[in-house]
Amino acid sequence: MQGTKTNTELLAELQETLAGDRVTTNETILEQHSSDESYHTPHLPDIVVFPENSDEVSATVKLANKYRVPVVPYGYGSSLEANVIPQQGGVVVDFANMNKILEVREDDFLVRVQPGITRSQLEKELKKYGLFFTVDPGADATLGGMASTNASGTTSVKYGIMRDNVRDMEVVLADGSIIHTGSLAAKSSSGYNLNGLFIGSEGTLGCFTELTLKVIGIPEHIMAARAEFTSVDDAVDAVIAILQGGVPIARVELADEESIKQMNLYSETDYSEVPTLFLELHGNEAGLKQDIAFMEEIVSDMRCRQIEFETDTAGRNKLWEARHNAAYAFIHNHPGRKQMVTDVCVPISELAGAVKDARAAIGESGLSGGIVGHVGDGNYHILLMLDPENTDDIERANHVNERIVDYALERGGTCTGEHGVGTGKQKYQNREHGHALDVMRQIKHALDPDGLLNPGKIIE
Amino acid sequence: MQGTKTNTELLAELQETLAGDRVTTNETILEQHSSDESYHTPHLPDIVVFPENSDEVSATVKLANKYRVPVVPYGYGSSLEANVIPQQGGVVVDFANMNKILEVREDDFLVRVQPGITRSQLEKELKKYGLFFTVDPGADATLGGMASTNASGTTSVKYGIMRDNVRDMEVVLADGSIIHTGSLAAKSSSGYNLNGLFIGSEGTLGCFTELTLKVIGIPEHIMAARAEFTSVDDAVDAVIAILQGGVPIARVELADEESIKQMNLYSETDYSEVPTLFLELHGNEAGLKQDIAFMEEIVSDMRCRQIEFETDTAGRNKLWEARHNAAYAFIHNHPGRKQMVTDVCVPISELAGAVKDARAAIGESGLSGGIVGHVGDGNYHILLMLDPENTDDIERANHVNERIVDYALERGGTCTGEHGVGTGKQKYQNREHGHALDVMRQIKHALDPDGLLNPGKIIE
Repeated sequence: MQGTKTNTELLAELQETLAGDRVTTNETILEQHSSDESYHTPHLPDIVVFPENSDEVSATVKLANKYRVPVVPYGYGSSLEANVIPQQGGVVVDFANMNKILEVREDDFLVRVQPGITRSQLEKELKKYGLFFTVDPGADATLGGMASTNASGTTSVKYGIMRDNVRDMEVVLADGSIIHTGSLAAKSSSGYNLNGLFIGSEGTLGCFTELTLKVIGIPEHIMAARAEFTSVDDAVDAVIAILQGGVPIARVELADEESIKQMNLYSETDYSEVPTLFLELHGNEAGLKQDIAFMEEIVSDMRCRQIEFETDTAGRNKLWEARHNAAYAFIHNHPGRKQMVTDVCVPISELAGAVKDARAAIGESGLSGGIVGHVGDGNYHILLMLDPENTDDIERANHVNERIVDYALERGGTCTGEHGVGTGKQKYQNREHGHALDVMRQIKHALDPDGLLNPGKIIE
Repeated sequence: MQGTKTNTELLAELQETLAGDRVTTNETILEQHSSDESYHTPHLPDIVVFPENSDEVSATVKLANKYRVPVVPYGYGSSLEANVIPQQGGVVVDFANMNKILEVREDDFLVRVQPGITRSQLEKELKKYGLFFTVDPGADATLGGMASTNASGTTSVKYGIMRDNVRDMEVVLADGSIIHTGSLAAKSSSGYNLNGLFIGSEGTLGCFTELTLKVIGIPEHIMAARAEFTSVDDAVDAVIAILQGGVPIARVELADEESIKQMNLYSETDYSEVPTLFLELHGNEAGLKQDIAFMEEIVSDMRCRQIEFETDTAGRNKLWEARHNAAYAFIHNHPGRKQMVTDVCVPISELAGAVKDARAAIGESGLSGGIVGHVGDGNYHILLMLDPENTDDIERANHVNERIVDYALERGGTCTGEHGVGTGKQKYQNREHGHALDVMRQIKHALDPDGLLNPGKIIE
């Protein structure tokens, strides 16, 4: 579309609607919005806009409609499956200027935010109220982006995923009209569940312009631990035993030997380079003590080599920082290489087999790679380092990806636990959903008949 | 349609497809399927079928399609807003013969069931495995029915609603084709969230033929309590304080003075006839003790007159039986009268005001009525006794209903927390959802273009 008549006219109309410097075709800015944090091929948008309110988003979508040009909402760009790459050009709507907390309803445990606020910004603000938002995907994503991919992460085993923690959204639809998807009530049986439908729709059904999030009080007592195992199998068995023991675990993360090595290099930790579980418990003091004693018993039954508890905040922060930086550690330690992160989720009973097979697949690929995961949910990631110019590397990485997904789908799992479909997981949609994919297509067609909202994502 | 050519031909084709005695036009059976447990006006279906598997459901829907006749799925008939009343006649699909547990996946905390299984049947079977399904709406509804209305109940404050506890469904669509809405994975970001969309759709988007439910281990320790207050305000303030104190309460139910009176008459209890909270905590022994001590402190700060704990199973069961039978107690104690139950949900900060206003509305109506509710979610019900032949009674009850709903909607609440829309809450849909109702209509039209699935419900 670059330089066409459509482009010029649309640009002029956008500049009339939004202040001039918030509509740009600056090459550097276009470039910044051409990629995400993945290995997927970048593509330039034609225009980037920075709206400041819902009406400006609505006006932008209406204009894009008038000129039949794609609209791609953009948060922080931390997606991993090309979810935000404007592969057909068009207008990228960057929510950087819409990053405010609009309302804190302490008594209702609710906070209303704009979609461009990042997790760390939100966390910092909420701390003043003794509150926290539970979903923690690792990356410092925007809340709008997290809702788009139905993100989850380390705490979802206890507190749920984005879909469980967003109570209402304001959404600009394909025609520029504005709706709310929920209410302030803790539950509802009124009408169809639009809230859940829009969450995870990756910008293909509308642009989120406001979110009302469920928050909780910061837990009275928190205890973190690092448990070392001789084999991944033992570590996974321990997770299953902890869950079956009814321990209300708040976080349980696996990192394999290779991932711990990379963490040690990057985070200057000196953890034993063996399969490790990072654990966290939240609760009252007495309950926590009993849970910890029980958990120690369980992991020692599962041949745990050593378990180390972190009681103070500093120790706990260091532990989770190391875990969160696992992906960045691989990237940092492999200069010039890109990372393929594949993300699947299996029924927990299939987890040990899945991780074992994944480890074998990495070994056979010859690529450097590790396994980390939110294993309490049966969700794990493979971090594979590859040279994006080397087709052989890409082929081998794709092969690992396919094998992992195959393994999950054959056992009732899903091709993506939390990263979303984008284009990277599109080829598995038919296999995973079968005829249900046609229903998804019907919904997409009903709500975006011209296919202008993030075209080519999720639904081909 | 009764006796028409369409009817005769459809009947013959259905009888060819299903065994003869599972397709009926017997007057008594038609009558049994003409109403639910509410005050709403009954309407006879033309045919009732009792399928035994998904293929028979699919064949039934295909035939109904061929003859352009409505299809209304039916579980136990315990709905409260006319959700299952076949107001345009047609074929009622009764799932009584599809009531089996198909698979228990203990390691995955999943159980696969047919939609016609009732809550009590399921509970009995799961007990053998030390497992339980958390959603407890009070009525012994079928699981299919509970998914249809997105039911919840006493335990939702801790464990969530149906939408949180159904992982996958098999659904027969309007054209008779069959899909799955989810997978066995604990979470997924793959495709649109059909699972959440179909749950709560009240048979208007498809017939559920199989459900995979999330179950949990029976809690190690359970403690129930009954806390008596002088005023409803104090009781509600205590609930808010318990939630803000971070006590992980598993159940917190309010019954007002009038409801306690009716319970005492019906359940032969001798509870003080004052506003009362029924409470329950789940956890490990030490944690529970600390929670109880903390909770006692909180409720006494909130002017609790007396709190009584039930440590043994028998005492606990008696307490919850009395609470669950509150609605039946009113009916039993008012022979010849019907019950209007209105169900709204408000943000918790608005709960005290809402309940106070509701109590005033009942008083002004001159009707006998009580307030009970799952107040930890901000969800409460008004039970109003009326003579269904007396238009003045109905008018007064409708007036109370409208006032309660208005109060909720003005404060960001919802017109139904758990009973669903049916036809009873239809007139509030536009006010609650605004333009989002058009989106719902588009989805309904896309998935059921001829409007044959439970026509007239949710969407007009």
